Amino acid sequence: MLISKNVRIGRIISGTGRYAALDLLICVAAFLVNEYVVSRYFVFPAVIPTILGTALAFFVGFNNNQSYDRWWEARKIWGAIVNDSRTWARQIIQYTTSSESLSEAELLSLRRIAVKRHIAFLYALKKNLRKSGVSEHDKFIDPEEFAYVEKDMNVPNAILSYQSKLVEDLYKREAIDGFQFMEMNRMVVNFCDEMGKSERIANTVFPTTYNYYTRSFIWIFIISTTMVTANSIGPWSVLFGALVGYVFLTTHSVGQALVNPFEPLPTGVPLDQITRTIEINLLQMLGETDIPEPVQSVDGEYVL
Amino acid sequence: MLISKNVRIGRIISGTGRYAALDLLICVAAFLVNEYVVSRYFVFPAVIPTILGTALAFFVGFNNNQSYDRWWEARKIWGAIVNDSRTWARQIIQYTTSSESLSEAELLSLRRIAVKRHIAFLYALKKNLRKSGVSEHDKFIDPEEFAYVEKDMNVPNAILSYQSKLVEDLYKREAIDGFQFMEMNRMVVNFCDEMGKSERIANTVFPTTYNYYTRSFIWIFIISTTMVTANSIGPWSVLFGALVGYVFLTTHSVGQALVNPFEPLPTGVPLDQITRTIEINLLQMLGETDIPEPVQSVDGEYVL
Amino acid sequence: MLISKNVRIGRIISGTGRYAALDLLICVAAFLVNEYVVSRYFVFPAVIPTILGTALAFFVGFNNNQSYDRWWEARKIWGAIVNDSRTWARQIIQYTTSSESLSEAELLSLRRIAVKRHIAFLYALKKNLRKSGVSEHDKFIDPEEFAYVEKDMNVPNAILSYQSKLVEDLYKREAIDGFQFMEMNRMVVNFCDEMGKSERIANTVFPTTYNYYTRSFIWIFIISTTMVTANSIGPWSVLFGALVGYVFLTTHSVGQALVNPFEPLPTGVPLDQITRTIEINLLQMLGETDIPEPVQSVDGEYVL
Amino acid sequence: MLISKNVRIGRIISGTGRYAALDLLICVAAFLVNEYVVSRYFVFPAVIPTILGTALAFFVGFNNNQSYDRWWEARKIWGAIVNDSRTWARQIIQYTTSSESLSEAELLSLRRIAVKRHIAFLYALKKNLRKSGVSEHDKFIDPEEFAYVEKDMNVPNAILSYQSKLVEDLYKREAIDGFQFMEMNRMVVNFCDEMGKSERIANTVFPTTYNYYTRSFIWIFIISTTMVTANSIGPWSVLFGALVGYVFLTTHSVGQALVNPFEPLPTGVPLDQITRTIEINLLQMLGETDIPEPVQSVDGEYVL
Amino acid sequence: MLISKNVRIGRIISGTGRYAALDLLICVAAFLVNEYVVSRYFVFPAVIPTILGTALAFFVGFNNNQSYDRWWEARKIWGAIVNDSRTWARQIIQYTTSSESLSEAELLSLRRIAVKRHIAFLYALKKNLRKSGVSEHDKFIDPEEFAYVEKDMNVPNAILSYQSKLVEDLYKREAIDGFQFMEMNRMVVNFCDEMGKSERIANTVFPTTYNYYTRSFIWIFIISTTMVTANSIGPWSVLFGALVGYVFLTTHSVGQALVNPFEPLPTGVPLDQITRTIEINLLQMLGETDIPEPVQSVDGEYVL
Repeated sequence: MLISKNVRIGRIISGTGRYAALDLLICVAAFLVNEYVVSRYFVFPAVIPTILGTALAFFVGFNNNQSYDRWWEARKIWGAIVNDSRTWARQIIQYTTSSESLSEAELLSLRRIAVKRHIAFLYALKKNLRKSGVSEHDKFIDPEEFAYVEKDMNVPNAILSYQSKLVEDLYKREAIDGFQFMEMNRMVVNFCDEMGKSERIANTVFPTTYNYYTRSFIWIFIISTTMVTANSIGPWSVLFGALVGYVFLTTHSVGQALVNPFEPLPTGVPLDQITRTIEINLLQMLGETDIPEPVQSVDGEYVL
Repeated sequence: MLISKNVRIGRIISGTGRYAALDLLICVAAFLVNEYVVSRYFVFPAVIPTILGTALAFFVGFNNNQSYDRWWEARKIWGAIVNDSRTWARQIIQYTTSSESLSEAELLSLRRIAVKRHIAFLYALKKNLRKSGVSEHDKFIDPEEFAYVEKDMNVPNAILSYQSKLVEDLYKREAIDGFQFMEMNRMVVNFCDEMGKSERIANTVFPTTYNYYTRSFIWIFIISTTMVTANSIGPWSVLFGALVGYVFLTTHSVGQALVNPFEPLPTGVPLDQITRTIEINLLQMLGETDIPEPVQSVDGEYVL
Repeated sequence: MLISKNVRIGRIISGTGRYAALDLLICVAAFLVNEYVVSRYFVFPAVIPTILGTALAFFVGFNNNQSYDRWWEARKIWGAIVNDSRTWARQIIQYTTSSESLSEAELLSLRRIAVKRHIAFLYALKKNLRKSGVSEHDKFIDPEEFAYVEKDMNVPNAILSYQSKLVEDLYKREAIDGFQFMEMNRMVVNFCDEMGKSERIANTVFPTTYNYYTRSFIWIFIISTTMVTANSIGPWSVLFGALVGYVFLTTHSVGQALVNPFEPLPTGVPLDQITRTIEINLLQMLGETDIPEPVQSVDGEYVL
Repeated sequence: MLISKNVRIGRIISGTGRYAALDLLICVAAFLVNEYVVSRYFVFPAVIPTILGTALAFFVGFNNNQSYDRWWEARKIWGAIVNDSRTWARQIIQYTTSSESLSEAELLSLRRIAVKRHIAFLYALKKNLRKSGVSEHDKFIDPEEFAYVEKDMNVPNAILSYQSKLVEDLYKREAIDGFQFMEMNRMVVNFCDEMGKSERIANTVFPTTYNYYTRSFIWIFIISTTMVTANSIGPWSVLFGALVGYVFLTTHSVGQALVNPFEPLPTGVPLDQITRTIEINLLQMLGETDIPEPVQSVDGEYVL
Repeated sequence: MLISKNVRIGRIISGTGRYAALDLLICVAAFLVNEYVVSRYFVFPAVIPTILGTALAFFVGFNNNQSYDRWWEARKIWGAIVNDSRTWARQIIQYTTSSESLSEAELLSLRRIAVKRHIAFLYALKKNLRKSGVSEHDKFIDPEEFAYVEKDMNVPNAILSYQSKLVEDLYKREAIDGFQFMEMNRMVVNFCDEMGKSERIANTVFPTTYNYYTRSFIWIFIISTTMVTANSIGPWSVLFGALVGYVFLTTHSVGQALVNPFEPLPTGVPLDQITRTIEINLLQMLGETDIPEPVQSVDGEYVL
């Protein structure tokens, strides 16, 4: 998530530099082709860039809308994960009581396991979504359980099964009753839903044809703008073709930067920050004192 | 689902070739008609393609929005099926216990039946949605049950009734209690909803008039662009009519490719991949060892 | 629901013929007025149709979006009715058991009544939504009940009260327990919601001012296009005014055809087909053998 | 809710007359200023109205979209109120039984109180939303209760508390059990939600800056259109400035008429009609014979 | 929330003054650069501002849509908080009864604590969202509890844990039964969700690149409009560049004013007013007599 109000020159250049250079090159080429080839046969018709410009504004707008919607949907899903994580911890801590078959000490231990395992679930899910090689969830579950879940194709899903087993165990040992069982099970169901929704966005490729053709049509538009202006102002047309092209290329790129919101990009959903916030909240609710620091921004520019 | 970032030339040609050729032909015809007929009587007014271009950008944009929405809704429904399938298996495995009227062995058998039958439900639903002749669900249910459900007009719906019966049976034999009954029944209700939602998208034809008139108006637009540019640049106008036409025709086609997301097209929802992923997840949750491979992409280009 | 991919010439003419004729007439009149009146005083400014064309594309686009949304919402509601109908039948059949106060024979009879009465509910609702005079629900409920519900201002709502009474009766006679009571009552609540949502769409007139002014502005646009082109190409302008007008008028009409999705139009939601499909599904679930045929399309063109 | 398909001349004049007159006046002024001041120094550039026209089409379109959404959301909320009202009455009537602590006569009386008090809730809510001075809810609750709730800042909210108390009373006196208590309480929660949602729309002013600037920019656009056309066609430009201005002003007004859907306007949500329909439905469900007439339209033009 | 229908001159100047001045300056500079540099080499092509104008209308429109959606979503969340707050108080007051382990006096005290603590939750949440230093929640909870929750990173979340504990306590002491426990717990879950949703909007920065590039492109557009009109009308072009630029800059600003709806801005969501309204409603439901006044508007112009 970008947090600085102004965009740093470095980011602009790294973000749009490649396109800008290509843009300029294409415009020079378009000018030369117009000068030495096209203009010998006919005058490039001025109506073409106007029509294409309007159409492109629509298609770029469409792409950006869908990209933004994916990004915001991803953010909403992780917002829901924050909420349900707090509710999970709250219910585990407030609604469980010791019973004949469950001593106070065992109960305290089960509470810690349930809350810490949930933190493991979050880190395992983050690892999957970011296709990252780094495991952060190992320290929140015991080694045996870790070894077991790692064998599963879907690690966070395997962790959730342990949570279900724990809820059933609490129920059977009368730490909770049927009503409380329902409420806690509902949280496990929610985590499973939110996990699947995140996977859906991470694994569904935005229709590549949209992206491909929109970009192609922008290049056609740039070439035609250069050729049309070349007829009246000569080599300076390169400037205008490149300028107008830059506006469309950049707007399209800005949208594309949001289309895969779970990738570890500055424009992505800040999973590092969100998981850490939940970790802090949950450890405080457990009454722990060894609380990690919140995630810091990178150069005050973005958080991952 | 297309997965390669660039679109293969072969795909472009097979996807847009037919329109491109027709496009060129119509432009040649439009040029000839303008040259030998229209221009004798009047000069084709230049304002026409500009107005039509703006209007068409709107109408094509509208069509593409609705197509994309259908595709994304379809993807969401199958995402929900993934989530509920995992929850179904988890609840069946974790929340059922043997009782006086249900031995441990019978329970293990019922669990396997419940989970495998659910895989059968998914394959039967996929077969219905893709109007495919191939049955993949037979090996997950016993032959007698298979013979029975095949007689029903709606096979997956008939399979769901078996699942309801099983939930009631677990309840009556005290493997689950009333709260757990509610949670499991809710999953059966969800599967019924998701099945119906998929059928709704698969069986509701996108209003054909939209498609028909939009395409007609694109042709009118192409013809008028050719005639208008012909007045200033002669036969070269064919090039521009065809080019601008190609942009609109392609954008329209790209949208139309998403309108029926359950057809076995490269642009569709990858039901093969999704059902296989669920199958793997569920079999692993059952502790099976004979796990099938994930679905592979076709030439690294798309998955079905 | 239109099902043929191409639109029949007959449909085009009947659908747009009236507008096309009026369109042509207005253009001829506009040409004459311009020729003999307007042009004596001033040249109709060319900027007017361009500005109006862009604005109209927006307003027509807005109308079509809202119309499509109404149509798709209507389709979704009836999709939900399909799903809940199957769940209703499944729960009634699978979750009810005979008890001390309810013999097996009485139970079988109550099940048939509950399922068939639901079919009656659907046909009564369809009758209301289509404001049709034909009753199809009489044969699914007993004559006494039919006589009673017919006296109510809202027949399907009266039928639902019978269903509630039946659920309460099953509960009191211990054919179902409290958990199952909740699940079944939830279905009755859903039917009430879906009935009300359908009525909302059927009875809420789309703001007539939108429609009225959009159409008025299209005529202003047509007249101004004709007059502007008349200044350069004379009587041929009638052709262009009419052509461009036809594009806008048709697009507007195509949208308007979706605005009242429950009317028995070829473009409407196919209530005949949907209710019949549910009827077949439910009768098969009851194990009936006398199953009606699915609804056939009219000339392969549309289903009602 | 407007119901007549065509808009009456009277409504057009009263609705747009003020703007039309102002529009014309401004155009005359613009023409004079252009003729005697501006044109002495420079020719008003023709590109200005074209650019402003496109931009305005967007901004007016944005305003109208949001207005329509508010109106439709308001309609949906009251649709939900209709559904939940019927469900409330149905559950109160079908699911309550006499018990040791509740005689059949008391039960009948409580049912009537519960249903009639709900009608009072609706009329009190309507009064609040329409900021009307007329009380229609007094005759559905007893005078003592009326006196009490009138002291509350929020009358319908105070009525709902009586309904909660009644549900608790039915529960404590064993007229309903826990499951039925939950279902009935859910309805009270829904009424509270729907009341709050209605208040949100009624009390949240649509951002006034949007409205203010859009209108200001329309006037700038009108003036510039008049001045540009004045340069080629003289005083006739007043006609075109006014015409094009009228299109934008009217479209904007049509949208603004929907922005406060609970005001007693012909374009608003027909609360009179909806509350009366519910009243009729509920009284019929109670078996009453003294049923009021449905609300009639005003001159066949609209219902309030 | 702005409430006055017209926008005060002071607000316009303070809101748009800075941009207007910069706008004018840039136009003067653009004119001078065109006059003394650009025009010596070439005539600025007229097609550029037209193309950019259309594209910008799209991009500004996109930004405004998303801003408005954030603002309306924020308003909806706080609407839901209003509803659930009333339901919470109603359930606490109507559904709790004294029991063997809970005297009538204790019950009355617990009710007051539960309702007042909820008011504290709201004020603590408001403080967090507005990043304000003023605590208003201290007077609604006892000092010990206040000291404890203030140590938590997330104060309102810590308060919610106290509410859960109270619900569990009521349950254990038989003031409520399992069904009522579920309903009350559901409210705590809702508050946690609404808190998290508010935080999501408050803490998620709208993608800064959108804002940055849109504003940059508006400046490019302003410069090109000035230069193009300068070629025909000389220094007066400054007027037109500035005017058209003002329209785009203002529209963009109006949207941006909604993007952070929880900041204490006149255009934000009126948290002061909403929390006070809830406070009044809840205190009246408790039967308190010391009720605070509703929040007053600032100069009849806006409420915070």
